[in-house]
Amino acid sequence: MSFFETPGLKLSGDSFSVVYNIEGSERKAYAKAKDICYEQTVEFPEEMLPPGAIKEQIAGSIISFEPHGENLYQTVISYAVELAAGELTQLINVVYGNISMKRGIRVEEVRLSRAILKNFAGPRFGRKGLRNLLKVDKRPLLFTALKPMGLSSSQLAALAYKFALGGIDLIKDDHGISNQPFSPFEERIRLCSEAVNRANAQTGNRCLYLPNVTASHSDVVKRTAMARDLGAGGILISPGLTGYETMREIAEDDGYGLPIFAHPSFLGSYVNSASGISHYTLFGQFARLAGADGTIYPNFGGRFPFTRAECKDIVRGTAVTMGEIKPIFPCPAGGMSLESIPDMLSVYGNDVIFLVGGGLFKHGPDLIESSRYFRKLVEDYHVEM
Amino acid sequence: MSFFETPGLKLSGDSFSVVYNIEGSERKAYAKAKDICYEQTVEFPEEMLPPGAIKEQIAGSIISFEPHGENLYQTVISYAVELAAGELTQLINVVYGNISMKRGIRVEEVRLSRAILKNFAGPRFGRKGLRNLLKVDKRPLLFTALKPMGLSSSQLAALAYKFALGGIDLIKDDHGISNQPFSPFEERIRLCSEAVNRANAQTGNRCLYLPNVTASHSDVVKRTAMARDLGAGGILISPGLTGYETMREIAEDDGYGLPIFAHPSFLGSYVNSASGISHYTLFGQFARLAGADGTIYPNFGGRFPFTRAECKDIVRGTAVTMGEIKPIFPCPAGGMSLESIPDMLSVYGNDVIFLVGGGLFKHGPDLIESSRYFRKLVEDYHVEM
Repeated sequence: MSFFETPGLKLSGDSFSVVYNIEGSERKAYAKAKDICYEQTVEFPEEMLPPGAIKEQIAGSIISFEPHGENLYQTVISYAVELAAGELTQLINVVYGNISMKRGIRVEEVRLSRAILKNFAGPRFGRKGLRNLLKVDKRPLLFTALKPMGLSSSQLAALAYKFALGGIDLIKDDHGISNQPFSPFEERIRLCSEAVNRANAQTGNRCLYLPNVTASHSDVVKRTAMARDLGAGGILISPGLTGYETMREIAEDDGYGLPIFAHPSFLGSYVNSASGISHYTLFGQFARLAGADGTIYPNFGGRFPFTRAECKDIVRGTAVTMGEIKPIFPCPAGGMSLESIPDMLSVYGNDVIFLVGGGLFKHGPDLIESSRYFRKLVEDYHVEM
Repeated sequence: MSFFETPGLKLSGDSFSVVYNIEGSERKAYAKAKDICYEQTVEFPEEMLPPGAIKEQIAGSIISFEPHGENLYQTVISYAVELAAGELTQLINVVYGNISMKRGIRVEEVRLSRAILKNFAGPRFGRKGLRNLLKVDKRPLLFTALKPMGLSSSQLAALAYKFALGGIDLIKDDHGISNQPFSPFEERIRLCSEAVNRANAQTGNRCLYLPNVTASHSDVVKRTAMARDLGAGGILISPGLTGYETMREIAEDDGYGLPIFAHPSFLGSYVNSASGISHYTLFGQFARLAGADGTIYPNFGGRFPFTRAECKDIVRGTAVTMGEIKPIFPCPAGGMSLESIPDMLSVYGNDVIFLVGGGLFKHGPDLIESSRYFRKLVEDYHVEM
């Protein structure tokens, strides 16, 4: 089979590796591990490849394979760094592209060498940069959402003004509010930015308004530029809808310079079963590679089924060392009540952003007062720690 | 709660609807259906919304709710067309954004009215346009892939030449081949396009070479333009990696005018469990909305777990009436052998593209001969039908 001889093929030897959990008996799980090595790279059955550079350098290699629980094995597979071609799409493709269609395989962690990390700038601000921007040194940050969809732009701006006056640090559009006729993007961004900046002038705070720019790539680009020009403080993107690369291109473009928050919409299927991607990698590692400064996810104990352990895994993923890629903020959300804040502080510590939406409305009819209460809760409790 | 009064809100009354299957007892499933209506729109608990336009026009409405098997219910929920803001990202967000993070909910079908379909041009060619382009009236089309990753551009071009000489209609890059140093994009596209066009001059066929342009949006745009300028016949994109919108923007841009094939990489998690999206909607309806002319998916009986029934559902989704959106080709793939072609013809009929990769190599060392055999199999058997 002469067409598999590749005399010119000489790779650097640099690699990255992926930790997978695999369900099945030892024999079956090992066969799946071997299958991953070939399916994710050459897409050729092992037995059809003659010995040579393709088999030795292009196919993945099993570095380790160990029992990891009942009917469960953990394997580490390494891939030549050249396979990812310096692209985030192709990196994700090697990590979990075709095998997303097979069952009982879960990505637990990606271990990226400097040779691959040098392709990604990561978040522009990260935890430290965002604290500097907001001038908040230590306490957890407060985050809320403008909602419900259906309000006019001026109604949303009135809400934003109250939240900002009450001491909220970050105010985003609800992630379903995009460019609907009842609150068109440009009008909404103009009014809400103005409202938040007016409140900041009164309070001396640096509250940021974060419009949702999720749309086609062309519209993400247009809306991000508009957000910057109209005085918004950052942006919200759902990378599950836009693709991770669209978020990364915006994050790495110096022309914008805005903090970015990633919303988990349409990503749930990756974490809903024993096949898929770990919370740690999806909401932690991938969000950072794609340039998010904060990663929003449904908190445990709210209206979504994420567990306490899974949320702690996300927190680890936001801060694990990944070369020069900065640590980012975990932003637990989704049906959190103000009453749960003290307990949440004990779980998350200070480096967290609490996203409370409906909970602020539930607390009482005076939104400024509810916002102040939220802020005081966080300030009182965090000092004790 | 004065901030929920929206005197100016008056929607068109046009809607679209989504069919969901929901697991659980009748009581629990009904509660989940109600939850979908609010979670996917206002993100506000029903009990906190006063009667009024937001509750009546913005929240989703349950149109029907019926038993659909053991511990399974089927509901149809309608949404105001304005909620999708004319955007594919926001349409998908309403259909399955946040509820992707809940369990036991599966999107079975989207039912899109003209008011929403008018925002999407759909595939440029579709089944009929692609047959015209290839000058193949009736028989199933033949598709193969250049692989394995690791070959040089000239080696891949030599393979492409043989496949085209042997009568294959469509030749794509393996979906993991992007811009690696061993076969850089521009060089590969130049050599492979030239090889296929040279073979076409000899055979009189119109074989198309389809480079994989999956990358960041900027690179997709650059590479698609390069593919067009260097004489490639179409492109391959993995919308799970780029986002559906990137594929749609390329499809709808008259400046390219190339047929597009969608690869299923990184989409498997949506169809791997009872939560997610049906094969029909994901690989059929969504692929068409996003402008694919052919939708690639793993065939039953190959190395992926898709069933015969699921593959038939995809075929239905490629052709179901969706306003002016053209029917597209199902492209079953993934470990298909030439021996299975006669059986596949009885399942798929003539309007199908058989994607055989490794199977051609397995058939024998002479790839021209194997390609001819593949073509003859299809020609012989389709006539009998």
